[in-house]
Parts: sequence; C-alpha cells; structure tokens
Amino acid sequence: MMNHDTQFCIVGLGLLGGSYAQGLKQKGFKVSAVDINENSIEYALKMKWIDEGSTSLECLKKADCVILGLYPTLVVDWIKENQCLIKSNAIITDVTGIKREIVPAIQSILRSDLEFIASHPMAGREVSGVEFSTPSIFKPANFIITPTESNTDRAIEFVTELAQLLEFRRVTTLTIQEHDEMVAFLSQLTHVIAVSLMNTNDNTHLVEYTGDSFRDLTRIAKINENLWSELFIMNKDMLLKEIDDFSKELQNFRDTLEKEDVERMKQLFIQSTMRRKQFDK
Amino acid sequence: MMNHDTQFCIVGLGLLGGSYAQGLKQKGFKVSAVDINENSIEYALKMKWIDEGSTSLECLKKADCVILGLYPTLVVDWIKENQCLIKSNAIITDVTGIKREIVPAIQSILRSDLEFIASHPMAGREVSGVEFSTPSIFKPANFIITPTESNTDRAIEFVTELAQLLEFRRVTTLTIQEHDEMVAFLSQLTHVIAVSLMNTNDNTHLVEYTGDSFRDLTRIAKINENLWSELFIMNKDMLLKEIDDFSKELQNFRDTLEKEDVERMKQLFIQSTMRRKQFDK
Repeated sequence: MMNHDTQFCIVGLGLLGGSYAQGLKQKGFKVSAVDINENSIEYALKMKWIDEGSTSLECLKKADCVILGLYPTLVVDWIKENQCLIKSNAIITDVTGIKREIVPAIQSILRSDLEFIASHPMAGREVSGVEFSTPSIFKPANFIITPTESNTDRAIEFVTELAQLLEFRRVTTLTIQEHDEMVAFLSQLTHVIAVSLMNTNDNTHLVEYTGDSFRDLTRIAKINENLWSELFIMNKDMLLKEIDDFSKELQNFRDTLEKEDVERMKQLFIQSTMRRKQFDK
Repeated sequence: MMNHDTQFCIVGLGLLGGSYAQGLKQKGFKVSAVDINENSIEYALKMKWIDEGSTSLECLKKADCVILGLYPTLVVDWIKENQCLIKSNAIITDVTGIKREIVPAIQSILRSDLEFIASHPMAGREVSGVEFSTPSIFKPANFIITPTESNTDRAIEFVTELAQLLEFRRVTTLTIQEHDEMVAFLSQLTHVIAVSLMNTNDNTHLVEYTGDSFRDLTRIAKINENLWSELFIMNKDMLLKEIDDFSKELQNFRDTLEKEDVERMKQLFIQSTMRRKQFDK
C-alpha cells in the first residue's frame, strides 16, 4: 500500500493535475509530472510543486502511481501508446468526468501487471491551467471511485487513501453507470441550462438590475469549451435524456401558466420547495 | 419633502413591510402599521419595530407616506376601498414585483389630492413573515422606481430619498413596461427554471453527490407559492415569451449535441462565457 516512498507521476499538468501535485508534495510524497507543454512543467518546477518533470515520459518508469489529468478523449489512446513505459504493479487512476466511455476501454487493453482504478474528483474552477491549481479546491468536494469487476481491493484502498490525504470532503463509490447518470443530472444538465439561459437573448444590458439569484444560476455558463464539449458528447445518451425530461417539465410549467391553473402551479412550487429543502446543507 | 416629522404607515406587515418599518425606525422616523393579522402587529410592537399598529385603519389618517406591502392581487382593491381614509397630499408607494397590472389601474382611480408612485425593492428571502424581516436585505439590493406621466418630481424624489435612507445598493428608474420585461427574464424565468429542474425527476437520492453549482442553481426553487403564482399570472404574456425563447435555445443546444456538432457547441460555450463575464461584479 501507500507509504512515504510511494512515487507519483502526474500525466497532464493542468488545473487538476497541478492541484494533485501540490497536495501530494505537501504530504511529503515524491511527485513527478509529464506534459506536452514545457511552460507548465517549468512553472510547476519553479513553484516547487513537483520534484521533477519533463515533456518526455522518463518519469513514468519509477512511478508507483500514475494519475492521468488528461482531456477525456485522450485518456484511452494515451494508455494504448504509453503503458509499455509504466512500472510493473503500478496503480493508474484518472480525473475524468465521464466513465462508461473510458473505463472498460482501458481495462480491456491494459497490461495484466498494471491496474486502472477510475476516479472522479468533483472539483474545479471557472479557469483552467496549472497556474490556477490549488489543493484547496478539494476541501468542499466529493471524490467518486468507480470500480469494476477488474479492480482489486488493494487498488480501491489505494485511491481511497489518496482522496483522504488530499482532504476531499467525502469519498464514495458508484458503478460507472450510476456515476454517468449522476453527473448527467447534477452537473451536465445544470451546465446546459446555464449556457442556454445566457444564450437565450443578449440581455447584457440588464446587468445593473441583476441580483444574486441570476448570478448564482448562471455562474457555470463560464465554461471551458474544449473540455465540456468532450464530456457532453461522451455522455450523450444520458445527457439527452436529462435535457428531454427537463424540457418536458418546463413545458408542463408553461402550460400550467398559460391555462392560469393556479392550484396546479402552487402544487409545483410546493413540490420544488420540499425537494430542494432536502439539498440544504 | 421628507423631514423628521414625516410619518410612515406600512400596510401589510410581512417580510418586506417589517423590513421597511425597522429601517425607517432606525433612521428616527415615526412608523405605524396595519395588518389583518393581529399577531404580526403585536410582534412588531413588542420588537419596537413600529410606534403603533392595529388591525383597524386608523393610523392611515395621519400618515404622510403609505407603503403598501400587500400581495399583488390585493393592491388595487385595497386602494379602491381605503383611499378615502388617507390624508390629503400623502404619497403612496408599494413593493409589488410586477407593474403593468397595477400602476395604471391605481392611478386611474386615485383621488386627485393623493399620488401613487410605484416602486419595487428587489430584495427578499426564502422565508416569509414579519418575524424574518430585517433591513439588511436591502444592502445588496436594487430599488426600482417606475414613474408614469401621472407622477410628479416631488413624489419621485421622495421615494428616491426613501430608498437611499433604507440603504439600497442602487436606485434606478424604468418604465412599467421595461420593468416587467426585466423581471420576466432576470427573476421570473430563473425561478421557473429552478422549479422545473427540481420537479424534473425525484433526484433527492443524489443529495450526497451534490456540489455548490447545483445548490446555487436551485436555491430559488424554494418559493412562496401564493406570492409567486400571483406574480407569474399577472406577468403572463412576458413570462411565456421568456420561457418560449429559453426553450428554443435549449432545443438548439440539444440538437447540437445530438448531431455531435462540436464546432457549434464550442461557439455556444464561448458565447455564454463572454456574456456571463459581463455579469461578474
């Protein structure tokens, strides 16, 4: 299991990769990093967030744990091309926000002396890049582990320990199916709504009348277009279903308003109030 | 104009009425209140938020300014029935969240020695009732004045001064048409979205995975069903248009996702990001 000689290698030194690196360094672990962008490596070295780093893949050879901080569409191909360099018995994990499209694909091609245990740190910021990384984003966040039948208890315990030492608020386990359903509703649909609301009409002339409700509801309309277009398309079936269910409910509300069915409208408000109260902290 | 002998009478001592009362008392003014609920009056008297109060309308006779803190559907009838009791030259204002349905109706029946100048304090809480009232809700809020051709500079200046002494963040002026359009988009549509999202499916089992984005987006799904059903129906034409425009944009996003039109999806994200940045404080 994990001990103070355990060496980590971060692959892809962006917002999340950089935050993992800092969190692990602070706990006294050896951390290396690889990235195609030399500036990111240099920045992290200068900040002493990593012990070593390079645009080549040399560091992989001594890592006991490889953390893939890559864009979703790159993860499977990266494993295909580079697993030959990874040390025997290493544990590989990721940060990807969708699971069905990548976990079985990786596990079916992985060398038998390696193990891929998928995880999703549900943390982020409205900005991207290693220079914005900070392990403080983990404190209020959930860490989801999505084991499959290919995974061993050893690997599950390893990433659980990883999440705990990075000080995530909560660590939970879901199947890859449950995970993708959960993010389709809680995360992806809410982003679609915020983006669509901002795109409905150009209402920027209303900015001086805007209160906190509108700001809260649309904050996530500031979105990394490269990352989220990949996440949405890789979870398309489930996200389309959520959009359709929501559209139907919106249409139901619209018809209730058009008919001026006050009693039905009040019932809808009472139901939403009751349900939302359960989400209060 | 306003001076320290100016007497205020609050009609309807709820969350807003109680907050006005406290704010005015703190600035040294005489404040009375009328309400059909004796408990609300007693509570406010006990808390010393008002100097006098009653379920009868006696207090009206000496008030220089009457503030209507009533539900939207009650405002016009209240004026019809009770304007006979108001002191000559008094200024009447309100707190109503929609304007087209009430302002011309009141101004067309009002005694010629009275003046109704409509205003909308865009402040609130997720709870209602005088016991939750506090003038601190005004500090981050906008105060909108909606004068018509019937209004005098004297009345507009009076409510401007009122808003300033209650320490609203900003005081602005809109036509009743502009006001109702603005609230349809910024306030009413966002409430419809939050309510519909909570009502889409019962996802309360997902509560432990919920992050701040979802909580922020759905906070306003906790809603006073009596107040908001009135506000929505009295602004029905404009709100239906906003719901339809938003639905069309949501459908546009859905189709973009279904077709996997990545370039178009990225453009939508870039547009929403740019627009939302203008709403940052």
